[in-house]
Amino acid sequence: MRPMKTIDWDDGSVLLIDQTRLPSVLKMVRCRSVSHLITAIRRLEVRGAPALGVAGAYGVALAAFTTRGRDFENFAGKVEAAAQQIARARPTAVNLSWGAEQVLARVQQARSIDEAREAALAEAQRIADEDVAACHALGDYGASLIPDHSTVLTHCNAGALACREWGTALGVIRSAVQAGKKVSIISCETRPLLQGSRLTAWELDRDGIPVTVIPDSAAAHLMRKGRIDCVLVGADRITHDAVFNKVGTYMHAVSARAHGIPFYVAAPLSTFDPDHGEEEIEIEDRDRDEVATFNGRVLIPDGVPVLNPAFDATPLSLVTAIVTPFGVLRPPLDWETIAAKRRVI
Amino acid sequence: MRPMKTIDWDDGSVLLIDQTRLPSVLKMVRCRSVSHLITAIRRLEVRGAPALGVAGAYGVALAAFTTRGRDFENFAGKVEAAAQQIARARPTAVNLSWGAEQVLARVQQARSIDEAREAALAEAQRIADEDVAACHALGDYGASLIPDHSTVLTHCNAGALACREWGTALGVIRSAVQAGKKVSIISCETRPLLQGSRLTAWELDRDGIPVTVIPDSAAAHLMRKGRIDCVLVGADRITHDAVFNKVGTYMHAVSARAHGIPFYVAAPLSTFDPDHGEEEIEIEDRDRDEVATFNGRVLIPDGVPVLNPAFDATPLSLVTAIVTPFGVLRPPLDWETIAAKRRVI
Repeated sequence: MRPMKTIDWDDGSVLLIDQTRLPSVLKMVRCRSVSHLITAIRRLEVRGAPALGVAGAYGVALAAFTTRGRDFENFAGKVEAAAQQIARARPTAVNLSWGAEQVLARVQQARSIDEAREAALAEAQRIADEDVAACHALGDYGASLIPDHSTVLTHCNAGALACREWGTALGVIRSAVQAGKKVSIISCETRPLLQGSRLTAWELDRDGIPVTVIPDSAAAHLMRKGRIDCVLVGADRITHDAVFNKVGTYMHAVSARAHGIPFYVAAPLSTFDPDHGEEEIEIEDRDRDEVATFNGRVLIPDGVPVLNPAFDATPLSLVTAIVTPFGVLRPPLDWETIAAKRRVI
Repeated sequence: MRPMKTIDWDDGSVLLIDQTRLPSVLKMVRCRSVSHLITAIRRLEVRGAPALGVAGAYGVALAAFTTRGRDFENFAGKVEAAAQQIARARPTAVNLSWGAEQVLARVQQARSIDEAREAALAEAQRIADEDVAACHALGDYGASLIPDHSTVLTHCNAGALACREWGTALGVIRSAVQAGKKVSIISCETRPLLQGSRLTAWELDRDGIPVTVIPDSAAAHLMRKGRIDCVLVGADRITHDAVFNKVGTYMHAVSARAHGIPFYVAAPLSTFDPDHGEEEIEIEDRDRDEVATFNGRVLIPDGVPVLNPAFDATPLSLVTAIVTPFGVLRPPLDWETIAAKRRVI
């Protein structure tokens, strides 16, 4: 395993791997302003729910360091406005607003601008470190679910690149491999932005974990042929009734159930949303161009519309278990305990 | 509707639309030799099971016209060898070998080279015309299955471009629209070669039929949201126990069943294979590059393997009905009647 930090605080700015350039180019982006960071979030240069939580936290710290104010109240008001902009950069992953809110609360509790900056950075660093610890903890719990000599199907990228390091779904795989198990991964390419091809294949291959890429639509076929032992994905938000994750997750859950294959989700506590149900959550619709063009080539005739939902919702009834940093949970979930633990992250 | 011939006999050669260039460029390819036609089939310049049946038939006619022989026996032997090469150009669609065999039989029944050529071309033309008639006949039968004001999900391209004209699945849609029904289509983009984006969207848009493209993995999500009234696809081969069609068809069938949505297949008789079961049929594995690169861009790190099955098999138990030129069949199928009708196409 070769640990790398997907996102970090460095010399008063936020440093992140530009995930749009992988697998061909490993390039870092340095965001010195909140607006630059928001653009990076919208362009998916940084993506993945846990990494967005860290980005939200670092983003508010960056706001604190780059904001000038007549007095503390004026300063805190401006930081709050910046925090709201950051939280709204993408709507579906709850972690982004969660990370921003945690740091904003520290700013608001401070008594001076200097104290606010120090507290904001300390809190953001704590959230970033906590993300790493959470991935290792859930990895260790989840590894027990992965049989030796098994093939695991995953969708999109819930790996080191979706977190600060190690990963959620791929963190479980890394922990299983570290524990000596032989595990191979089937990575769905994950249209339209191909995070499965570009990111999951890249980071597993880099760690020497066997990975094979398939078109998303071949997953059910491989399940029917007995070639998949379990499905393991990350999550962007877990409400009372559903797991929101990259579009395609629901179809894998339906197929897994039809073939009697376990369907696992791995997520840190910041991904849980105890306050909402599925119907209240907005699923981000992304640009037509992501589906209609590729690398400058037109794939769909002009004028033909596209539906490009970034996420879908999988009812908890199709989920075998959720791997968290405090253990493996099987639905129905104990929401009181989850909410209490989430408050003290 | 603007009819166009996907494949035709023209001045001693086979003329076909180069489907790899759509939707940007509508360009014809003229095949003057069997080897050129085989390359066109392998490169998917012509594809779709019924169109491959016509290509197989015209291909053997082309062999008859371009082959020289010391005597009739020598000539017939060479044409037979060419027919076998054509039939093996792609393994899964049964129509290709069926079309080649029909024309080869006429060559073998002739008593002179001239008579063989004349009979081969007449039989190939008959098969080509029969394909058009079959699509219109099955279109009219199938139209009764499509409710007015409905949304139909389709996968890949079972349209005019997959046949000589009109189409199988899209022939049903055209017949329903011609009968005055309001129908809109959700076309799955169909990775890796994007026939849904490039071909289905193009030909429906050209005919003014409303079409929206989605990533393949969004289909189950839309079914769950109540936005799909039925699924309608073509087929590459229908054995005793399964429908072989573009990879992804099976996942749509599983999802349709889970949501109580009818799953329809439309196919001419040449697609039925009364002599085989699923386990005997080879599913074509296509090149890694189709998934790993696009338009010159590397999507998957070098050395990471890809599984790229062109087709999958959907058990007949998941199929609500099969639309054929002699009516709508509901499993279990009456194979004796199908085999008898198939012999007299």
